[in-house]
Amino acid sequence: MRFWGWGRDGHPSVLPEHALGFLADRLGSLGRRRAPVELEQVQLPPSRLAGADGQVLSEVVGPDGLAVDHRTRVLHCGGKGYPDLVRLRSGHPDYAPDAVLFPGDAAAVGRLLRCSAERDLAVVPFGGGTSVVGGLRPEPGSHRGVISLDLRRLDAIGRPDRESRLIRVGGGVRVAALEQCLASGGLTLGHFPQSYEYVTVGGCAATRSAGQASSGYGRFDDMVVGLRFASPDGELDLAATPASAAGPDLRELVLGSEGALGVITEVTLGIRPAPPARRYEGVFFETFAAGCEALRALAELDGRPDVLRLSDESETEQSIALSASHGIRDALGQGYLRLRGVGGGCLAIIGFDGGEAGVRARRARSVSVLRRLGAVVIGQSPGRSWLQSRFSGPYLRDDLLDRGVMVETLETAATWSELLGLRRAVADAISSALQARGTPGLVMCHVSHVYRTGASLYFTFLARQQDGDELTQWRAVKSAASAAIVGHRATITHHHAVGRDHRPYLAGEIGRTGVGVLRALKRELDPGAVMNPGVLVPLPGEDQPAEPS
Amino acid sequence: MRFWGWGRDGHPSVLPEHALGFLADRLGSLGRRRAPVELEQVQLPPSRLAGADGQVLSEVVGPDGLAVDHRTRVLHCGGKGYPDLVRLRSGHPDYAPDAVLFPGDAAAVGRLLRCSAERDLAVVPFGGGTSVVGGLRPEPGSHRGVISLDLRRLDAIGRPDRESRLIRVGGGVRVAALEQCLASGGLTLGHFPQSYEYVTVGGCAATRSAGQASSGYGRFDDMVVGLRFASPDGELDLAATPASAAGPDLRELVLGSEGALGVITEVTLGIRPAPPARRYEGVFFETFAAGCEALRALAELDGRPDVLRLSDESETEQSIALSASHGIRDALGQGYLRLRGVGGGCLAIIGFDGGEAGVRARRARSVSVLRRLGAVVIGQSPGRSWLQSRFSGPYLRDDLLDRGVMVETLETAATWSELLGLRRAVADAISSALQARGTPGLVMCHVSHVYRTGASLYFTFLARQQDGDELTQWRAVKSAASAAIVGHRATITHHHAVGRDHRPYLAGEIGRTGVGVLRALKRELDPGAVMNPGVLVPLPGEDQPAEPS
Repeated sequence: MRFWGWGRDGHPSVLPEHALGFLADRLGSLGRRRAPVELEQVQLPPSRLAGADGQVLSEVVGPDGLAVDHRTRVLHCGGKGYPDLVRLRSGHPDYAPDAVLFPGDAAAVGRLLRCSAERDLAVVPFGGGTSVVGGLRPEPGSHRGVISLDLRRLDAIGRPDRESRLIRVGGGVRVAALEQCLASGGLTLGHFPQSYEYVTVGGCAATRSAGQASSGYGRFDDMVVGLRFASPDGELDLAATPASAAGPDLRELVLGSEGALGVITEVTLGIRPAPPARRYEGVFFETFAAGCEALRALAELDGRPDVLRLSDESETEQSIALSASHGIRDALGQGYLRLRGVGGGCLAIIGFDGGEAGVRARRARSVSVLRRLGAVVIGQSPGRSWLQSRFSGPYLRDDLLDRGVMVETLETAATWSELLGLRRAVADAISSALQARGTPGLVMCHVSHVYRTGASLYFTFLARQQDGDELTQWRAVKSAASAAIVGHRATITHHHAVGRDHRPYLAGEIGRTGVGVLRALKRELDPGAVMNPGVLVPLPGEDQPAEPS
Repeated sequence: MRFWGWGRDGHPSVLPEHALGFLADRLGSLGRRRAPVELEQVQLPPSRLAGADGQVLSEVVGPDGLAVDHRTRVLHCGGKGYPDLVRLRSGHPDYAPDAVLFPGDAAAVGRLLRCSAERDLAVVPFGGGTSVVGGLRPEPGSHRGVISLDLRRLDAIGRPDRESRLIRVGGGVRVAALEQCLASGGLTLGHFPQSYEYVTVGGCAATRSAGQASSGYGRFDDMVVGLRFASPDGELDLAATPASAAGPDLRELVLGSEGALGVITEVTLGIRPAPPARRYEGVFFETFAAGCEALRALAELDGRPDVLRLSDESETEQSIALSASHGIRDALGQGYLRLRGVGGGCLAIIGFDGGEAGVRARRARSVSVLRRLGAVVIGQSPGRSWLQSRFSGPYLRDDLLDRGVMVETLETAATWSELLGLRRAVADAISSALQARGTPGLVMCHVSHVYRTGASLYFTFLARQQDGDELTQWRAVKSAASAAIVGHRATITHHHAVGRDHRPYLAGEIGRTGVGVLRALKRELDPGAVMNPGVLVPLPGEDQPAEPS
């Protein structure tokens, strides 16, 4: 992956020319293009690794399992959050790993963790490298140095247990590679986050990822039936069990642990027969509230859609304006027209995977609910366009950053009865914070994960970057949005995880006692506090809900 | 509830006369009837509560919130497990609470826990009083005394949030009372464990209960969306959130905590529209393996049955022999005949709740799968009989104990590919252990909770009691069965919880690191170790898998 953004070097731009006028119109003049620095120009501090460290560590991983070269270190300087990209594009990451290690199996991971704790080295586990919450910034904390633990060699894929619909895989296996392997046997996992092309199963488990088809296939944490977890204190090996009443669920402690307690070295995942048929289509609602009401009704159906997502008016308008596809613009334009002439309206995508007959029957049940609730079904063209561009968001972000446009996303979830109020509060908080910085923004929102009791809200906002002050600008917005979320007792993150960016707000969600529990877990599993310092676990003084800064 | 068994005093016998011959034939001569002692004859040690204790505690709960009378203490001497009943029927419980407290709200619970910790009194939270794993034995541990914390006054039922399908209720609310209250508003929870008549929502959450309709409505832990939890160290207040990626899921630590970390004072539960229609019916399979294969296929269906249970050959035969209902015997007799003349075969019950049309359509899909897999659908009569007698197991146990018959159940779960091997191993372990004691037994098994990846196994065994040696006899069997379960890496309990009975085997499931995590949680939330001593958390020396004793 290119160090300053998403995808391989040379990936073509996905921002169409016609979008630039739209953006300038809404955000103000965009100014000149800003290219990221070259890899060689990135400024890194010299590695603090002592000779003895290198010797001990490479005894565990073998001579080709340790890297200290510039390129490898730069590629492990962070994740893909907005602050990461701002820093890396400018050539000034504020931290860099002193070395990158590539352990070959779970036992080597365990030895490395013990060895790092003994030698007072912080450890940042590194899967696909896609964290958008600061989860991969290699801060040494109070330690002598910091190593990045790249898990790509934990790439074993077991034989599927077709009877139990399970497969056991190494924590470093890429979701895309697993999906490809399963497809050759007529099977699927069904986990498709926007970061699909890069994420690993261990990373998805450690961050409680949710994919775009979560309403059918479930969240990633639902898919994990068993796991192995290495901590500096020892290994947790939890066998695949469909359900248990044997006390607190320790799987649920490892899920979401974000490398701050240890490393997920293996997971056993629920899998399914690959769907022979697929039907994804567009639906139009007059208002976001009407769309939510329909999603709520669909969420209760047996055989509800596998994909269910609803854009608000603003996102609908922008996806037309920013889309590179004529198809989606034409289809949406027609939907608009058919519905109400020009302007307004919310686009939803509903998608069904399965056998031909099942898809037909399930679709019929959903469409009957949708029509009763006043939706207009506008055909498969928007569904196909969405499928084609479902992983393109991060590429678009790179193109926008090239043009000096800040683009950031954040997400939450709430019960249905709280959802509209929460959306308004968070959108207002983002808008006001951007306005206060003198950079009025575009704020949009969608629902992309539904449950019987509620749904997620995913916000995207765009504004002109404040030159040289990008991170202060970003922090002001993040803080305002997070305070609004905590004020509504909603969750500070539905599927991006806590990382560093949400850590100050975690106490607002789990309270003082909850913070105490996390710290107790950390003390037990990572007594030397070497695991991913600054990630997840609130720092001293962060025991109470944070005030907006 | 009668102190020595289940139900109210004077509940009529449910053991039909015709069953006695069958039992004597299989287990050997049953001997004379054995009545339990009278309440007044139960031997209790004097209350160790000092005057100052009583004064301080009743300041928290009010003068009518503290009881030390003989009857109240006897009724809080334990739960309803086999060892509890053996002890109580003989009038010799080995422990009794020094006082029983009835706090009126969550704040009073919190104050009581702090106060008990300060005064060095152990605390046993008490909901419906139905634990079958020794979870309610009031052992003081190393403390000066022990109080039973009866939560019946935490009985508030909030207004349902119909939009989000949620209701917030006090931890002491009985599931049956909640169901009745919901029914009046056209709603349901859908949690029907065999202990339905007595259990509380807090108890179901603390023990990860699973109801008979779990394949449709989910396990109780699936229903808990938010909760409040009082520990001696402070309160955990986790708002209702449909899903979150904010770190480890702290709800999942409270669920299954069995009163050993604190007290669940409130839960927010997912609810559903009450089903206007219901269709439950019997299905016959030639073999248990064929039945499991069919359940596995049904578990994958959208709109699968809400109730799915399959008895093995032995349980099928015994449910005919022990049934008080002519209907079930006649219907099953016919099923037998139709299938294969006499003997053999396994009965399953499948049940659908919902709207008329939905039930019809879902049933049609399930029946088509069943017929393809060779099942014989034998009509609604067995379904109705099962519905009528679904909560009668504990009454039957009392009648069997009256006749000197040991009857005990235990349960586990495993993936589909491991299920048949596990069943054989556990059944053999139970049979051999009973044989070795000179009391050959009847061992039966059913599947009553299904998942995509596997299912539960529920064993019932009957044997003549060894007079005066009942608990040694019981322990031998329990130990043999648990060792077989741990040996297969299955869970030591699917829905009965850990309590005291499974505690020695927990390390076999979660390992040394897992035990360390539980102890760390206990130290953090209950630093004085006053909460339910001996329950759930492995004792020193129990860090490794136990050897069968």
